[in-house]
Parts: sequence; C-alpha cells; structure tokens
Amino acid sequence: MYIGQVSGTVVATIKHEAFHARKLLIVDRLSPEGVPTGAYDICVDVVQAGVGDKVLVMDEGNGARQILKRAVAPVRAVIVGIVDDVELDNS
Amino acid sequence: MYIGQVSGTVVATIKHEAFHARKLLIVDRLSPEGVPTGAYDICVDVVQAGVGDKVLVMDEGNGARQILKRAVAPVRAVIVGIVDDVELDNS
Amino acid sequence: MYIGQVSGTVVATIKHEAFHARKLLIVDRLSPEGVPTGAYDICVDVVQAGVGDKVLVMDEGNGARQILKRAVAPVRAVIVGIVDDVELDNS
Amino acid sequence: MYIGQVSGTVVATIKHEAFHARKLLIVDRLSPEGVPTGAYDICVDVVQAGVGDKVLVMDEGNGARQILKRAVAPVRAVIVGIVDDVELDNS
Amino acid sequence: MYIGQVSGTVVATIKHEAFHARKLLIVDRLSPEGVPTGAYDICVDVVQAGVGDKVLVMDEGNGARQILKRAVAPVRAVIVGIVDDVELDNS
Repeated sequence: MYIGQVSGTVVATIKHEAFHARKLLIVDRLSPEGVPTGAYDICVDVVQAGVGDKVLVMDEGNGARQILKRAVAPVRAVIVGIVDDVELDNS
Repeated sequence: MYIGQVSGTVVATIKHEAFHARKLLIVDRLSPEGVPTGAYDICVDVVQAGVGDKVLVMDEGNGARQILKRAVAPVRAVIVGIVDDVELDNS
Repeated sequence: MYIGQVSGTVVATIKHEAFHARKLLIVDRLSPEGVPTGAYDICVDVVQAGVGDKVLVMDEGNGARQILKRAVAPVRAVIVGIVDDVELDNS
Repeated sequence: MYIGQVSGTVVATIKHEAFHARKLLIVDRLSPEGVPTGAYDICVDVVQAGVGDKVLVMDEGNGARQILKRAVAPVRAVIVGIVDDVELDNS
Repeated sequence: MYIGQVSGTVVATIKHEAFHARKLLIVDRLSPEGVPTGAYDICVDVVQAGVGDKVLVMDEGNGARQILKRAVAPVRAVIVGIVDDVELDNS
C-alpha cells in the first residue's frame, strides 16, 4: 500500500459491470513526507474520498478484489481508507 | 489503471488463439496532465480504440482476463475504456 | 523480499476486518548497504517491529497473505522478520 | 506485453523440468521506436526466435504459463511472437 | 527472470516454516553485460549458490513457489540456477 492524494476524476465509458456506479479517481502517489512522487493510479473508491483527501491505496489486484468483496473485478488499485495521521520519526 | 494514448499498432505472428482477430495497440502511458511518461504497453483492445484516442488501460493480468471474459488468456494489459474527460484539481 | 527500515506509522480508517488491530508501518526500502532508496511501502506487521528497526519485507500479495495465514486479506507488503545481520562481500 | 529484441542466450544449470530443452534468451526491452530502454528479461522461447529478432514478450507469470500450456511452470516472461511490423503515428 | 550475482547473506528471525533451514541471499541484479544495476532482491536459494556466484533469479511469486514445490510459501524471488555462460551478440 502507499499514501496518495486524490487530485482529480476520470470520466470514461467502460462496459464492465464492476465499474457501474463507481467513481474513478486520479490518485497521486506521495512520499511518506507528503510530496508527490510523479507516479499515479486511476483508483476505484470504496470510502467516498474526495479531491484533496489523503488516502491509503491498495495497489495489488487480488487484494483490491477482496476489498471490493468480488472475486471477479478487473481492478488493480483501490482506495481503502482515509489517512488520518502520518507519524514520521526523523530523529 | 492508467491513462494512455494509442500511438500505433503492432503486427505480429502469435499462435495463441486468445489473440485471434484481436488488434494489438501500442499505448503510451500519460501523466494525469496528458504528457507521455516514456512508458508504454502493447495492449489488447476491447473497445475499438483507434490511433490518437485517450484510453483507460487495465494493467494487471487477472483483471485483464476478466475484462476479456476468459479465464485463460495470456494478456497483461487491456484497453478497457475510452476516456471522455479528465478533471484535475490544481488549486 | 527487500531490507527495509521502519520510519513511521500511519493512522487510517479502514473498514476491512483484515486490518483490525493491525499496526500499519511506513517502511523505507534500503539498499543492501543500508542506504534508503527513496521507495517505501505501507506494511502490515506480524513481528512487533518498531520505528527504527531493520526489517525484512515480503512484497508480493499472495506471499503476504500466506504469512498472515489468511487466504483473504487485502495486503501486498508484510514485515516478516527483524534483520539481525547483513553480511556483504565487498572484496 | 512489450516489444523486445533478442540479444543473446544464457546457459544455466536449472533442474526444474519446465526448462528442459527450452532455450533461455536475453531480450532487451525496446521503446516503440525500437530503441533499447536498458531493461531486459531472460525469456523462455516458444516461437524459435533467434538473436537479432524483434519479438513480442508476455511479461506476466500467469499469462506466460498459459502460453506454455502448463499450469505449473516457473516462468515470468515468454516470447510469444515475432514482430512483423510496428506502425507508429507520429503526426 | 534476470541474471544476478550473490553479494551477501541476511540473517533474520522469521517464524514462517517455509524459511526453516533456507539461506537468505542478497542478489544484485546485473545487466546482460554483467554490470550491477543497483537493484537487488533477497532470495531463497535452492541450488547451493555462494557469494560471488552468477545466478538466474525467478522474480515472480507463483513461479518461485513452483520451484520450491510448495503451493504455500511466502516468497517472491528464488535462485533457480547457476549461470554457466552468457553469450551476447554485439555485432
């Protein structure tokens, strides 16, 4: 998993039923310090995240399908939680 | 998933039946802002995308096989949709 | 697997039961010489690792689920051990 | 999948029967324009590719096993076809 | 798979039985020409490789488990063979 930040949304025509009524969010991958790394994923959202939210992203297909509670779902990345706090030891 | 842009086609001799009558498209991976990142995938297409189209790419084998509705298909990346709009919050 | 160092913790609201009572740790990926590479993972911990510990990280979902002894667990990276010693041949 | 070019062969002692009588080829990953990217894979070959050939590489284990028609085969990358032509739109 | 070179060993306390009596080796990923790329994996060894040996590494979990002949083993990278020779065509 990694820490990300929702930066936008994608509107696309996808026929697979697993995507019906699912928002597709653009999530920038952050460093632990909160700096964008340049990488991103288009994620399915299960926690009602909004643009600007810091989120936890599960970036593995089998794990993502388990979060969605579907054995069959063509997804690789899912937003699994809202990040409340990051504590870093910089000593 | 990531946002890509179809930049060409590949003609290759592949014997596996899963590829029969499937176009193989070269898809450049884009940043959310629409800039090519230098990475690409050779993708199977299920949405009749053409050169120049902005597309959504599923880049995980198990998810790709589910899009193709085949348990057995040697694919890793599939074009799952045409991107209609990308909304970025740059505030 | 790779050698990492725990640099912090993440507090997040995740509803999936596999995460109940599991600490989520930020683990920086190290080079064999012990230098941070810039990459990191948010890991589930099964060995009671603490901030500053050098750890061994299993970074594959199916292997991670086996460490957790759950067929169903939406995880990709798990801390599987505390590193006691790294011996490098620099001859 | 990606476009590669066979640049050499590896001779190694591997005991697993899936490798018996299989050539192991070094395949450089190319950009769509045909420039080596610096990445490579050691690939199993099913199409009798030779050094210098441009090939299509399936770089996912489950897909690779399906190309080999074996449920059990410890492979990640397989040469699935010879590239006959690459058409790029550079307009 | 990739070509690697064993550069050291890791001593770690891991409780999972799949690791009992298995040496954990640090393997530097090499270019086809034999130059370290900076990447590495902590690998399980099944061929009695030693520090300095050039080896072939299977870097996919399902394939690695098949080499170990265990359906359940939390591994991602396994040394599957000793490299006897690399032939590169540099014409």
